[in-house]
Amino acid sequence: MTSDFPAVTVLGLGSMGSALAAALLDRGHPTTVWNRSAAKAEPLVAKGARLAATVEEAIAASPLTIACVLDYAALRGVLEPAAGALAGRTLVNLTSGAPEQAHEAVAWFRAQGAGYLDGAIMTTPPGVGSPEVMILYSGAPAVFETCRPTLAALGDPLYLGEDPGLASLYDAALLGLMWSTMTGWLHGTALVGAEGTAATAFTPIAIRWLGTVNRFLTTYAPQVDAGRYPGDDATVDVQIAAIDHLIHAAAARGVDNALPELLKDFMERARAAGHGSDSYASVIEVLKSPADGR
Amino acid sequence: MTSDFPAVTVLGLGSMGSALAAALLDRGHPTTVWNRSAAKAEPLVAKGARLAATVEEAIAASPLTIACVLDYAALRGVLEPAAGALAGRTLVNLTSGAPEQAHEAVAWFRAQGAGYLDGAIMTTPPGVGSPEVMILYSGAPAVFETCRPTLAALGDPLYLGEDPGLASLYDAALLGLMWSTMTGWLHGTALVGAEGTAATAFTPIAIRWLGTVNRFLTTYAPQVDAGRYPGDDATVDVQIAAIDHLIHAAAARGVDNALPELLKDFMERARAAGHGSDSYASVIEVLKSPADGR
Ligand SMILES: NC(=O)c1ccc[n+]([C@@H]2O[C@H](COP(=O)([O-])OP(=O)(O)OC[C@H]3O[C@@H](n4cnc5c(N)ncnc54)[C@H](OP(=O)(O)O)[C@@H]3O)[C@@H](O)[C@H]2O)c1
Ligand SMILES: NC(=O)c1ccc[n+]([C@@H]2O[C@H](COP(=O)([O-])OP(=O)(O)OC[C@H]3O[C@@H](n4cnc5c(N)ncnc54)[C@H](OP(=O)(O)O)[C@@H]3O)[C@@H](O)[C@H]2O)c1
Repeated sequence: MTSDFPAVTVLGLGSMGSALAAALLDRGHPTTVWNRSAAKAEPLVAKGARLAATVEEAIAASPLTIACVLDYAALRGVLEPAAGALAGRTLVNLTSGAPEQAHEAVAWFRAQGAGYLDGAIMTTPPGVGSPEVMILYSGAPAVFETCRPTLAALGDPLYLGEDPGLASLYDAALLGLMWSTMTGWLHGTALVGAEGTAATAFTPIAIRWLGTVNRFLTTYAPQVDAGRYPGDDATVDVQIAAIDHLIHAAAARGVDNALPELLKDFMERARAAGHGSDSYASVIEVLKSPADGR
Repeated sequence: MTSDFPAVTVLGLGSMGSALAAALLDRGHPTTVWNRSAAKAEPLVAKGARLAATVEEAIAASPLTIACVLDYAALRGVLEPAAGALAGRTLVNLTSGAPEQAHEAVAWFRAQGAGYLDGAIMTTPPGVGSPEVMILYSGAPAVFETCRPTLAALGDPLYLGEDPGLASLYDAALLGLMWSTMTGWLHGTALVGAEGTAATAFTPIAIRWLGTVNRFLTTYAPQVDAGRYPGDDATVDVQIAAIDHLIHAAAARGVDNALPELLKDFMERARAAGHGSDSYASVIEVLKSPADGR
């Protein structure tokens, strides 16, 4: 059987690896799969995947192997015994990790004579395959250019640069933004929920408001790059006055205030550093100079 | 001179009050203005506004008065001496405050025989007048319906309900979401900035990612209403593993970790309460039961 699309191997068939393999199959790639627990391959085999009996056999089946296991320790456990199969192959690693782990990995794969690209999937498994979803990559540009057409089956590939740690670094930064946003949303949801507003009623308003917040971020980004934060729109002093309303309203309704209190603390440290009349973007100066070396 | 649009008065010509008056003038409303420091009226008078010599005269000039001063104490200081002019008039208060202050205000205005609506402007002054921008209102529905066509000059009017405190409550909740999101963005910006990425390069990616986060909020809102948080997409346990990468990467680059550490603390409290296999939405249970009655 021939295909217009190059063969690909997927190592690791947890919820994310299975979604990756399914997206490749949907696009018509001849797809070989392997997982420590072989049973997880069954739905993919039913969709047309070929199940490899060993990691070596899986790597040998395709020029490009995509790995997505729990963590780098698991990846090492899978690949070290099969190192001999890697020469001349390319491995794209979508396992989550730290930038330092990507640096170590690139050196190890180079020693095996294999190409290596590090990546980070910016969605949950149901989003895989959607062209709206970003998948971040970093590492050798030539490796990225060769793999790009295949990687496009998984989501929109965004190349960040040659330093292989960049995908993990952006991943951490973006997940931090996600947790902050989700927790701020949950706090607001708890607050209006105390007066009987359903989360499903508040959330469309919150999402619409985040569209306005995006415009603030776009305004503030060049301020951060310039290191100057003109407070023409709203100053840190004004935000400090406003956050007290939030803290009082939440306290009166029994909602935990640790998050707004921490945010107020950042604002007060910015004011103490002379940024009272500056925009909120000046809070980055506080984040870049931890009070206690945290 | 006649106009197709009803006359409106604006009390308070700080940066926000001036933007409100300008939007009304732009739309063709005969607009009377007053400010404690009369000089701030000059640009508006140049645009066609009428400057009232006293608060009484300002209120008498229009059926509808919009007030936007620093806080409720300033509002009382402005209106109490002019209380006699309020009977039969409607006041829309866009001064920021707490829900309790809106409750007190509605009683006081009722005693003067005046209609009252409380509002919250969900933008900075440059956004006023844009139909994309939300302005929240709460209070008597009949008062809102009468004023709605005029209020539409300021932004898209969103009516939240009869309880006059709702606009302030939503305002607090949405500002909390804004500070959380902006601080998470600044933290991520500091992190990637430590490796040489400009804020203007990171921010479009962050904004695109927030579009994905919006889909998570939409998924989680009905979970919050149901009080059940199935972790099919990503569990609290998985998030706890991932946040350590952020904390280590930030620590290695001298970026303050108080925010991710607090977020991790919430996640660990959710896990301790039995939500390890649930979605992140389960963190709301922690926020609704403060550990120490904060
Ligand atoms: N789920 C998401 O929303 C999401 C989003 C972005 C990134 N990620 C990342 O994607 C990676 C996989 O996540 P997932 O959601 O697919 O997790 P998962 O469903 O728990 O799957 C874990 C996978 O790792 C394998 N594995 C674990 N320990 C192993 C070991 N010692 N040796 C060999 N294989 C081992 C598992 O094999 P068995 O089946 O044999 O246990 C399974 O294939 C993680 O790094 C995660 O951070 C996930
Ligand atoms: N700026 C924003 O982005 C924004 C966004 C949403 C909501 N708001 C809210 O809008 C309101 C006004 O904000 P702003 O940005 O316009 O502030 P601002 O530029 O500082 O203006 C404050 C206004 O309040 C008046 N004022 C202060 N104390 C007074 C007193 N004791 N008696 C009489 N008038 C007094 C000032 O009069 P003088 O000119 O005589 O000092 C001025 O008109 C605040 O409640 C703010 O929270 C602002």
